Amino acid sequence: MSPPARTSTLRAVPASPIAATRHRPLPIPSVRLVGGPLAAWRQRNGEATIPHCIEQLEVSGVLDNFRRLLGESDAEFRGLVFADSDLYKVIEAVAWEIARTGTRAFDSWLDDVIALVARVQEPSGYVDTWIQGVAPEKKFAALEWTHEMYVAGHLIQAAVALARADGRTDLLDVARRLADLLVERFGPGGEDGICGHPEIETALVELYRLTGERRCLDLASRMIDLRGHGLLPAGSLGAHYFQDHRPVRESTAAVGHAVRQLYLNAGVTDVFVETGDGSLLRAMDAQWNSAHDRKMYLSGAFGSRHRDEAFGDDYELPSERAYAETCATVADLLWTWRMLLADGGAGAARYAETIEREVHNALAAAVDATGARFFYANPLQQRRDHHSEENAPRERAPWYVCACCPPNIARTVAALSAYVATVTVGALWLHQLADAEIDLPAELGTGTVRMVTGYPADGRVEIRVEGDVVPGAELSVRIPGWSPRSTAAGPEGAREREGAGYARVPLEPGARYVLDLDLTPRLTTAHHRVDALRGAVAVERGPVVYCVEQADLDALFDVDDLAVLPAPINVGERDTLVLRCRVINAADGRYGPDTATELGDEHAVTAIPFSTWGNRAPGPMRVWLPRVPR
Amino acid sequence: MSPPARTSTLRAVPASPIAATRHRPLPIPSVRLVGGPLAAWRQRNGEATIPHCIEQLEVSGVLDNFRRLLGESDAEFRGLVFADSDLYKVIEAVAWEIARTGTRAFDSWLDDVIALVARVQEPSGYVDTWIQGVAPEKKFAALEWTHEMYVAGHLIQAAVALARADGRTDLLDVARRLADLLVERFGPGGEDGICGHPEIETALVELYRLTGERRCLDLASRMIDLRGHGLLPAGSLGAHYFQDHRPVRESTAAVGHAVRQLYLNAGVTDVFVETGDGSLLRAMDAQWNSAHDRKMYLSGAFGSRHRDEAFGDDYELPSERAYAETCATVADLLWTWRMLLADGGAGAARYAETIEREVHNALAAAVDATGARFFYANPLQQRRDHHSEENAPRERAPWYVCACCPPNIARTVAALSAYVATVTVGALWLHQLADAEIDLPAELGTGTVRMVTGYPADGRVEIRVEGDVVPGAELSVRIPGWSPRSTAAGPEGAREREGAGYARVPLEPGARYVLDLDLTPRLTTAHHRVDALRGAVAVERGPVVYCVEQADLDALFDVDDLAVLPAPINVGERDTLVLRCRVINAADGRYGPDTATELGDEHAVTAIPFSTWGNRAPGPMRVWLPRVPR
Repeated sequence: MSPPARTSTLRAVPASPIAATRHRPLPIPSVRLVGGPLAAWRQRNGEATIPHCIEQLEVSGVLDNFRRLLGESDAEFRGLVFADSDLYKVIEAVAWEIARTGTRAFDSWLDDVIALVARVQEPSGYVDTWIQGVAPEKKFAALEWTHEMYVAGHLIQAAVALARADGRTDLLDVARRLADLLVERFGPGGEDGICGHPEIETALVELYRLTGERRCLDLASRMIDLRGHGLLPAGSLGAHYFQDHRPVRESTAAVGHAVRQLYLNAGVTDVFVETGDGSLLRAMDAQWNSAHDRKMYLSGAFGSRHRDEAFGDDYELPSERAYAETCATVADLLWTWRMLLADGGAGAARYAETIEREVHNALAAAVDATGARFFYANPLQQRRDHHSEENAPRERAPWYVCACCPPNIARTVAALSAYVATVTVGALWLHQLADAEIDLPAELGTGTVRMVTGYPADGRVEIRVEGDVVPGAELSVRIPGWSPRSTAAGPEGAREREGAGYARVPLEPGARYVLDLDLTPRLTTAHHRVDALRGAVAVERGPVVYCVEQADLDALFDVDDLAVLPAPINVGERDTLVLRCRVINAADGRYGPDTATELGDEHAVTAIPFSTWGNRAPGPMRVWLPRVPR
Repeated sequence: MSPPARTSTLRAVPASPIAATRHRPLPIPSVRLVGGPLAAWRQRNGEATIPHCIEQLEVSGVLDNFRRLLGESDAEFRGLVFADSDLYKVIEAVAWEIARTGTRAFDSWLDDVIALVARVQEPSGYVDTWIQGVAPEKKFAALEWTHEMYVAGHLIQAAVALARADGRTDLLDVARRLADLLVERFGPGGEDGICGHPEIETALVELYRLTGERRCLDLASRMIDLRGHGLLPAGSLGAHYFQDHRPVRESTAAVGHAVRQLYLNAGVTDVFVETGDGSLLRAMDAQWNSAHDRKMYLSGAFGSRHRDEAFGDDYELPSERAYAETCATVADLLWTWRMLLADGGAGAARYAETIEREVHNALAAAVDATGARFFYANPLQQRRDHHSEENAPRERAPWYVCACCPPNIARTVAALSAYVATVTVGALWLHQLADAEIDLPAELGTGTVRMVTGYPADGRVEIRVEGDVVPGAELSVRIPGWSPRSTAAGPEGAREREGAGYARVPLEPGARYVLDLDLTPRLTTAHHRVDALRGAVAVERGPVVYCVEQADLDALFDVDDLAVLPAPINVGERDTLVLRCRVINAADGRYGPDTATELGDEHAVTAIPFSTWGNRAPGPMRVWLPRVPR
């Protein structure tokens, strides 16, 4: 391959398309989250989550897996076959953290671990400590389960992130040697090979974007073309487990292992963005509707089956058995962001609103208030005396045998500012509302756009344009679909709006706009085909999904016996809401005649944001509660 | 061990206690199902299912697994580690079929396969083709997963059945040698060892009942005492997967792998019956309530989790994800029957009614109209475009890689008449209503009780007492709890009854009684904590659970869009019912404001017995349908 392209912090952004898409992302340092929960979360991510992950890489044996290959550790191999990917995801998290803060605190750690990876890399470019140290005979010989390309993909993504964030190219050199090997072996004219766990596709497109190396894009395209032709020996979980059951262009339903489907879709969308192959986008449109209209949990989570960590059928969305893997939300965030970039304009709203739902709920719930305990599965209900499972414990755990989720949270939260804004020709788009400063990209001027807001606790967002702006530029601000009414006020006066979309106003120096969103708490129902949610309501306020925990209830009654009254919901202290509920008198027996539900006393019941459940102690919790029958 | 006790066809009965229990079973030949669905089913079982199973033992390699150890087959070992148990369950089925019909058609097959087992048996008494042929080093060395004692248990049960049914003792000799080995190695004073999959316990008690060999009962007791002390290394599924998380006497909730829990409970109840150890019965009472009041599907099925084939939490009973393994219903039938035997009298009603529910619904649904295709999992709902799993296919399959269910059905159906009646001092009890003849046991006389009925299609049951009866004898006939009103008429006139229990009348020569049950179709609801069933109703008639299949609907509307009106349900042709439903107008989008359900046109909708679903073609089906909100 040719030498690395020029890198700089100005390109510190995940998913930076080369091709002309309508929406282009802004670099991480250009968008500064100043206050509010997202800023606090990123701070905690940098101060607690990333250091915790770095520590766990030692504790869990991930780094020893490298050292033992160099004779520097006597340990046995530990962890699952894809344990290396934990390291690469943490490196990626560190890269975006450097982009955010300019910190140099991680430099010597990076020096050590990158050197470790470089020394373990074979002259061929191959590096995978499980294959090298445990089963060399399996090298590229059992792609359906070895995760070799999945691991390679995370190495490549970490390398791209470090190069973009810090101009650092030592890991990139390793990644390019590995990519060369993959291109030579599996590229056009080579062996037919795809990975059981998609992820390499999006990584190769990102490497292409950084280096301009077209062969990487071609390999990603080739892998997508090869998928769905039965190349992977299907095990007892079936070919749809790893989306090899049907060609990508004909695969319109999100099925099988949720994380694999969603990572695959991110890669497919990346290839569309760079090649303009419309047959891919058509499949992705159908996939997106399948995943989001019929298979998404209210929290912005995916996957209702534990056995194969899979999507269920349409409308199969049980609350207590929501698998809702944290990595699936991360994967969907990556994919939905690429769909937003690929969109023709204001159609981006539905993608931006989904990202908002995911960030404020499923993703936020996956990590606790200390930043060092994590959920792998994110159910929307926990019953009393719950019998939990390995990857779905009753409370957040510091790490997992399969530790994919914690470092995935770290790298995603570190890059969170990337999702706030984009630019199109002549316009800045604000997709996420947050207390933030956005430096205009050079094409729009040298000024700054400032959002001042207590969002999402407060519905007032003031937007100030400061500094120089090129004439005629515009600003598009997203109006969330959940706000029944909103008011956008500017120099021309105030205007009432209904429904979702973007408010488009002039981007003028000194301009000041005020957006007022309706944050009245609301009761939400699900589609009637979702059997698990029939006759039940959830409480939402703005983008925030609420839940009721047993911990907030009088010990005399049970969270599973409450029915919500159609009464106004009051805003309580510290992000809580207060609902009016009646207690259901438990019927005798299990099955019986169809008689009316007997309702008892009325109570005021506290609801808390779903993202904060279990922060006090594990125990019963519900997002969806029965409503008092009308 | 001592020579086998005298056996005769008069003891041809599964679970024949030695100890004085209030209820004692009648031999299979003494209870003849004459007409109606149960008689037809047993006929089909003998003519189709058992021969099909025998054929599959060749096709699937089970018999070759024995032959290869004798140098009589070149085949590799096939099937799972417990494949031998398929053979033993089929032998047991054949035994009860001999008891039913006196057929000699299976004799030469029995000669062959029993000789095969005897020749493979080691001089020590050990026999297990997977251990012997694949992993001799694992012999008794990995009891948590090798299933060796589970396999031994099925061998013993088959041997006991053959001895009871036909006086045949060749397999019994093999079983006794194997039991001797187990007693010597794991009995009192020996090694501490329990099996990952319970089943040996109940088998050892049955062997004790047949042979009087107390050491077998003691070994079963010892294994129950040892369980729940962490003797089995727990894997990623946890110790409760195989009920080793808590001592049996302290384990009041049915948890983990459903079949294992329920087989274990059958063994525990057997030990109580023979030893009178009340601490075991107290635990079993709590277990029974846990399994049946909070974890049983309406069809009489168990297990709501696919990942570990496990019970869910209390009230976790999703219809579409009901795992509801056929073997769990078989296991519960065995356990609940033992609870009935152990009961003090009329308390047997709840056990008998559960058995009725299981037999007419979950068990009947597990096999198709040809008798040669089977469900492993028995969901109560199938959605359109359902993505199925290996053990939970969209339609019944002729066999499974894990083939536990088909031969389990065969042995259970062959023994079905055993569940109809029992005897206590001075009384005959009729627990199941069916067109049948029951020869009185000697202690009650030499006569016959004849039930003449078209039950369950018809609610009239005529009972005639013919021949000699000892003076003062009584007859107890179960009145099902689902019949709101019933009339029992006899020589003394007619009497209206309300509620469940037993009608107790004189058992007199020439007496004639008529029981009239109310078979008006009814709408049933579930406990309010079952989120999956909120706002939904099921249709039942007598003991039969109904379902609606898309196959019976106008193609213009979908089974998932129906809401049941609270209108009278008509009885249609050939066991069908006709409901009044309205079509739910699908709301746009997935989640939205809490608005009233929009209902469209009214339709007459055909419902069929759940046990017959999928007999035409696979497709959408529902047992539970939303009801029109009151």
